[in-house]
Amino acid sequence: MSIVTNTPKPPYYAVIFTSQKITEDKGYGEMSDKMVELVSKQDGFLGFESARKDLGITVSYWRDEESIKKWKANLEHQEAQKLGKELWYKQYKIRIAKVERDYEL
Amino acid sequence: MSIVTNTPKPPYYAVIFTSQKITEDKGYGEMSDKMVELVSKQDGFLGFESARKDLGITVSYWRDEESIKKWKANLEHQEAQKLGKELWYKQYKIRIAKVERDYEL
Repeated sequence: MSIVTNTPKPPYYAVIFTSQKITEDKGYGEMSDKMVELVSKQDGFLGFESARKDLGITVSYWRDEESIKKWKANLEHQEAQKLGKELWYKQYKIRIAKVERDYEL
Repeated sequence: MSIVTNTPKPPYYAVIFTSQKITEDKGYGEMSDKMVELVSKQDGFLGFESARKDLGITVSYWRDEESIKKWKANLEHQEAQKLGKELWYKQYKIRIAKVERDYEL
């Protein structure tokens, strides 16, 4: 099975979420599982890739900007974003980027 | 110290490199260190972020497409790319994306 996400032919969008977490969990794991389940049902969601060492990187892929905006405004996701700021992250940066080309092995 | 890369105001470019490595090292670690040193000297290079669990994700940031193309064509980097295909990676995908906006905590 492929662990690299199969995305359609560009153009499509990538949201690059880079973060540094605090050490304690404080409910993060549970919320993370819930968000993975929820995001998978969103219209325009194409998949995501995630890895963490000290730094965590999650890249999610989307059909268009509209679907990214709807996901950001989703009420349950809004609650997760609020808790993220208050409890889980020391630092994060989110970059919204238009994938123009891709190639693979 | 910040471990999330300080990038300038968008637009700029991101190269999202997602990979699955083979288990053995086969000279990968040494080459990786060499490439980090070399890429840091390239014109237009803005920084990179990297994490690996099963999946590895490295996102490098660039001023423009021209600087990405020059780095891809760099002779030492070409040799590393060749060895990557032959020895180190089971699978990878590279996506070139234009960062349109960003925000952070």
